[in-house]
Amino acid sequence: MARVTIVGGSGYIGGELLRLLLGHPEVEVAAVTSARLAGRRVDGAHPNLRGLTDLTFADPDKLDECDALFLATPHKETMGRMAGFLKLAPRVFDLSADFRLRDPALYRRYYGLPHEAADLLPEFAYGLPELHRDRLRTADRIAVPGCMATAAILALHPLAAAGLVEPEVTIDARTGSSGSGASAGSENLHAERSGAMRVFAPTRHRHEAEIGQETGLSARMSATGVEAVRGVQVVCRARLAPGADERAVRSAFRAAYAEEPFVRVVAQKRGLYRLPEPKILSGSNFCDVGFAVDDDEPAGGAGRAVVLVAALDNLVKGGAGNAVQCMNIRYGWPERAGLTFAGLHPN
Amino acid sequence: MARVTIVGGSGYIGGELLRLLLGHPEVEVAAVTSARLAGRRVDGAHPNLRGLTDLTFADPDKLDECDALFLATPHKETMGRMAGFLKLAPRVFDLSADFRLRDPALYRRYYGLPHEAADLLPEFAYGLPELHRDRLRTADRIAVPGCMATAAILALHPLAAAGLVEPEVTIDARTGSSGSGASAGSENLHAERSGAMRVFAPTRHRHEAEIGQETGLSARMSATGVEAVRGVQVVCRARLAPGADERAVRSAFRAAYAEEPFVRVVAQKRGLYRLPEPKILSGSNFCDVGFAVDDDEPAGGAGRAVVLVAALDNLVKGGAGNAVQCMNIRYGWPERAGLTFAGLHPN
Amino acid sequence: MARVTIVGGSGYIGGELLRLLLGHPEVEVAAVTSARLAGRRVDGAHPNLRGLTDLTFADPDKLDECDALFLATPHKETMGRMAGFLKLAPRVFDLSADFRLRDPALYRRYYGLPHEAADLLPEFAYGLPELHRDRLRTADRIAVPGCMATAAILALHPLAAAGLVEPEVTIDARTGSSGSGASAGSENLHAERSGAMRVFAPTRHRHEAEIGQETGLSARMSATGVEAVRGVQVVCRARLAPGADERAVRSAFRAAYAEEPFVRVVAQKRGLYRLPEPKILSGSNFCDVGFAVDDDEPAGGAGRAVVLVAALDNLVKGGAGNAVQCMNIRYGWPERAGLTFAGLHPN
Amino acid sequence: MARVTIVGGSGYIGGELLRLLLGHPEVEVAAVTSARLAGRRVDGAHPNLRGLTDLTFADPDKLDECDALFLATPHKETMGRMAGFLKLAPRVFDLSADFRLRDPALYRRYYGLPHEAADLLPEFAYGLPELHRDRLRTADRIAVPGCMATAAILALHPLAAAGLVEPEVTIDARTGSSGSGASAGSENLHAERSGAMRVFAPTRHRHEAEIGQETGLSARMSATGVEAVRGVQVVCRARLAPGADERAVRSAFRAAYAEEPFVRVVAQKRGLYRLPEPKILSGSNFCDVGFAVDDDEPAGGAGRAVVLVAALDNLVKGGAGNAVQCMNIRYGWPERAGLTFAGLHPN
Repeated sequence: MARVTIVGGSGYIGGELLRLLLGHPEVEVAAVTSARLAGRRVDGAHPNLRGLTDLTFADPDKLDECDALFLATPHKETMGRMAGFLKLAPRVFDLSADFRLRDPALYRRYYGLPHEAADLLPEFAYGLPELHRDRLRTADRIAVPGCMATAAILALHPLAAAGLVEPEVTIDARTGSSGSGASAGSENLHAERSGAMRVFAPTRHRHEAEIGQETGLSARMSATGVEAVRGVQVVCRARLAPGADERAVRSAFRAAYAEEPFVRVVAQKRGLYRLPEPKILSGSNFCDVGFAVDDDEPAGGAGRAVVLVAALDNLVKGGAGNAVQCMNIRYGWPERAGLTFAGLHPN
Repeated sequence: MARVTIVGGSGYIGGELLRLLLGHPEVEVAAVTSARLAGRRVDGAHPNLRGLTDLTFADPDKLDECDALFLATPHKETMGRMAGFLKLAPRVFDLSADFRLRDPALYRRYYGLPHEAADLLPEFAYGLPELHRDRLRTADRIAVPGCMATAAILALHPLAAAGLVEPEVTIDARTGSSGSGASAGSENLHAERSGAMRVFAPTRHRHEAEIGQETGLSARMSATGVEAVRGVQVVCRARLAPGADERAVRSAFRAAYAEEPFVRVVAQKRGLYRLPEPKILSGSNFCDVGFAVDDDEPAGGAGRAVVLVAALDNLVKGGAGNAVQCMNIRYGWPERAGLTFAGLHPN
Repeated sequence: MARVTIVGGSGYIGGELLRLLLGHPEVEVAAVTSARLAGRRVDGAHPNLRGLTDLTFADPDKLDECDALFLATPHKETMGRMAGFLKLAPRVFDLSADFRLRDPALYRRYYGLPHEAADLLPEFAYGLPELHRDRLRTADRIAVPGCMATAAILALHPLAAAGLVEPEVTIDARTGSSGSGASAGSENLHAERSGAMRVFAPTRHRHEAEIGQETGLSARMSATGVEAVRGVQVVCRARLAPGADERAVRSAFRAAYAEEPFVRVVAQKRGLYRLPEPKILSGSNFCDVGFAVDDDEPAGGAGRAVVLVAALDNLVKGGAGNAVQCMNIRYGWPERAGLTFAGLHPN
Repeated sequence: MARVTIVGGSGYIGGELLRLLLGHPEVEVAAVTSARLAGRRVDGAHPNLRGLTDLTFADPDKLDECDALFLATPHKETMGRMAGFLKLAPRVFDLSADFRLRDPALYRRYYGLPHEAADLLPEFAYGLPELHRDRLRTADRIAVPGCMATAAILALHPLAAAGLVEPEVTIDARTGSSGSGASAGSENLHAERSGAMRVFAPTRHRHEAEIGQETGLSARMSATGVEAVRGVQVVCRARLAPGADERAVRSAFRAAYAEEPFVRVVAQKRGLYRLPEPKILSGSNFCDVGFAVDDDEPAGGAGRAVVLVAALDNLVKGGAGNAVQCMNIRYGWPERAGLTFAGLHPN
């Protein structure tokens, strides 16, 4: 049994952490903080939890020590507060972006300001179980990956690791509106965002940096907001290494994910859900990954084109659920503990 | 040719007025105001108008005189500014709620504050052509009705006027998110509003007051926000007068609206669009109205139950389009001028 | 441990039964049938279950005996097959409409044909735990209520049972598209159904009959399809008995549902989710119920107007989840077993 | 004045042609055909046209001659019927895919069967005014481009024609559900299609062939169905030629489209609608095109990355509206005739 505190509990990621941790068989939620809502019931901000908890928000400046801390605090602000957080608990799961990139220069380039706690960067493990499970078994500071980065890395890594793909990849990411958070501005009003296909990052989306770091590939990513509340999907394009074909790709995916509890290979020849679809993943911790190879082998020695697709719920496998999975690994609990919801169809 | 000014041009109603008036064959838009955006291009706020106008927003405190003024200014604020507005133009079309109710006590009851310009109330005509066309031909101050009120009045009036209905009616109204305006708060974030069925006014929706005034019925209305950007639908329930039946209802509707350019009677026995559906009305100035009578005649002399349905685009027939229709009547232009868009199917 | 069979497993209700029963700690799924898909993997029809089961669809004509049968078979067809079903298992949970109404004349009136197995009707208990828990503890044939009926009955029953409401009520029901099933026709194409407010039953919706039977009230219901996949909401209107007020209503609701595991009273004065909203209930077995009383006491002795609102997921508390809850009661298992999913916010 | 006939008038493209041609000042609609609905009112299939026409569907086998024929007939079937169509009218606007590709081998490769009327291919002009206006002034057989092809060609052509882009491009297309047509199957049921991100063509979408033919580039395209009824957006990726930069790109777009009535360059540095968004184009004939250049100039002489975005309404500029624009050019009418609707914001 672990007593945990969620810092930054009024937002969407904080609410999702709370939902998952309240239902976790090995966890007791000690506190959930919100400076703005301190003293108010948490089910006011998270109405789906009505009847399930009587917790009220705690003042973030008056926290007791606990076993583990989950940080759902803003990018750029978390790094300055990290030294203080580390005093509160022996284990920290940080869902902000501030400790994901090992290279502070890369942080500066993508986030536009110097890193304030670069000395702490080496202490953090990148919290992607499928790539770093062994390290996570003993890590006490874990930086939970970005939602689109998780999808793209899980799509690209099997081929990159097997040397089946050329290093230049492009990624087209699509995301629902919850990624903008509960305090998003007027550009996320329903009347503006509904039914949109908003290319909000035509070039240089920040998650490029994580993807490059974890796969070793040179990734260029654009991102578009589409109509959904939850859900991220990436469509990655690359060239296979010369001679590589659909069979080799399928083998690499099967080998990579056969034992993974939360990655499913979805690459069928036909059918409505032949490739990963976020619509049926809401609330679940699955990341579905799939692929299609263009059989046309180009002349001149260039490899075949491959399209990789991955989908997940940005608040679960793309955030809170993945953090809980990391916790399960760190504590030696069953990896699926608290994460058994299958997702809904239809939805 | 009339030179017109739109006051309050940065919001959704203001944008819709601008779209319609820019395309109107008899109108020249002299100015569009926005205190916040003065000097900025109007197509920044209204991106659908790119390429169609080079207008910039004018300072509302520096307006020249013009032929007609369209007010898309907030409720409760418009009444205090009206005396000033009346000096700017001989004809005023007010899209706020402030001059719709003839009885200032009713205004106080539904809007929660005393009317600041009660002396001006008698000067205003209620801008619903289907009920008041003759008066509108000569009216110089016109209060354009509320969106849900327009739908409900057009649904109820034929039966009320023909004495076919008992006076107690209930109305269930549904509305898209654009009704909350371009400056709506965080409760209208896409993630909260998407797919919602939000009963935001279970009792005493303000438009009750207009409906009562115009139909003479005692109306109780609830309102729910559903997933749509544009669109209002009302479902009204009443009892027919003893002996009245479906045939009498149909006759009353046909008689009332046979010559109306913007009201269509939609009451079929089967089919996908057998009753009014706002989905196919976006952008159009139609209000579709329909009905269904429960053939079961109750014992004890009570009348049959009737369900009336009406649908419109809240920004067009429920606001800007209806205002333009009133203008066409006042100026003696063809009533459809500038209002010919049919609506889209599918949409 | 109980071995169960789902008959009619390829549709939405069948898939939801399968999702819930696969995750139920006391249940083993013996078979899921589909005449059309016999021999095919069930995760082909229900892609959310990929990785969770290797079941294939069984031929409905070749079923072995089991402990309990769940019927997700069509209305009008189930009654003729019931005698055969009863031979297969000692306990039957029927999710069709055929055995919900005790009075075969009522069935004929609402379903348009005579009941083929009227002799079996008295054997069936109406599977609404909040009203009939004691009988369900021993019932072996259970008719699971309709989705809108469940919502309306749970909204109306506390006031009806306490004598706080006049007998004439009207109900405006709204529903998502999954209620039309996986084999719905072209009228449910996305392009036609998206963003719709389709009044498909202006009068005499079939669920009126169940509501009348269970509450003793005279209910008139209309139903509208709105934009959602899952979700039902009802808005009921009635008059309170003379003298009854908001406090009495609140007390009646609290008394009725204080101990209920799946009914939450949601009736706040303000806030985004002040009244029941299906959007946050997808996948959960909650039915949220709430109310608003119009304080205006009419002259002449008539009671105040009350508006009651209820919301649920039509496939869960409105179908498969409610069936599982009935099973839990019948078997003496914890009532929440297999039904712990909280629902998502945002969603 | 021209008398026109629409063949295949019951579908979405047929309905949109009818909407536009009924409102066209120079056109009289002589007939609209539907084998299935012959004799039935056209406003049964196209409810937005209620009150605007009393036409009934004609039998396609009993057509009289007319001035121009618009074909909204299926791919693969139109080629076999073309010889017959050409006898009915001196001018034919074909909205099927059958006469878009000049090379019958390419047709065979992408459509999977040999072309049945290859001898007629040279007679057809490709109906994209922005590239072929001069030829269209005299062309009597016009093949109207595909919806995604139109968007992609208008995005890519300015850079291709100016030699500013390397020949290898990838295209990620997103489309609303109306592209699947009014007779789409169960995979387009609302419950399955709503909120989807369905990668239905991960490689080799058919419109690749048109794009290659018209731009001379080597295009690889994937296509995803997202939540929208109308709307297509393409995101194209390429490398600029060495030395080319954002300024050169902007100049090329301005030069290409400064005089075009229906192409707007939308490429702003910030703002909600900084890049093309189909959401505000429903019903309009605009194609908005934009771009973003990654300023990072790669080492080794490779050009900068450029992302091109285009958006349109698939039924208007991507189909019926573009056909009407071609007709206006052919007849020497004002190019905007019948195509003045601006699009809605919000929508």
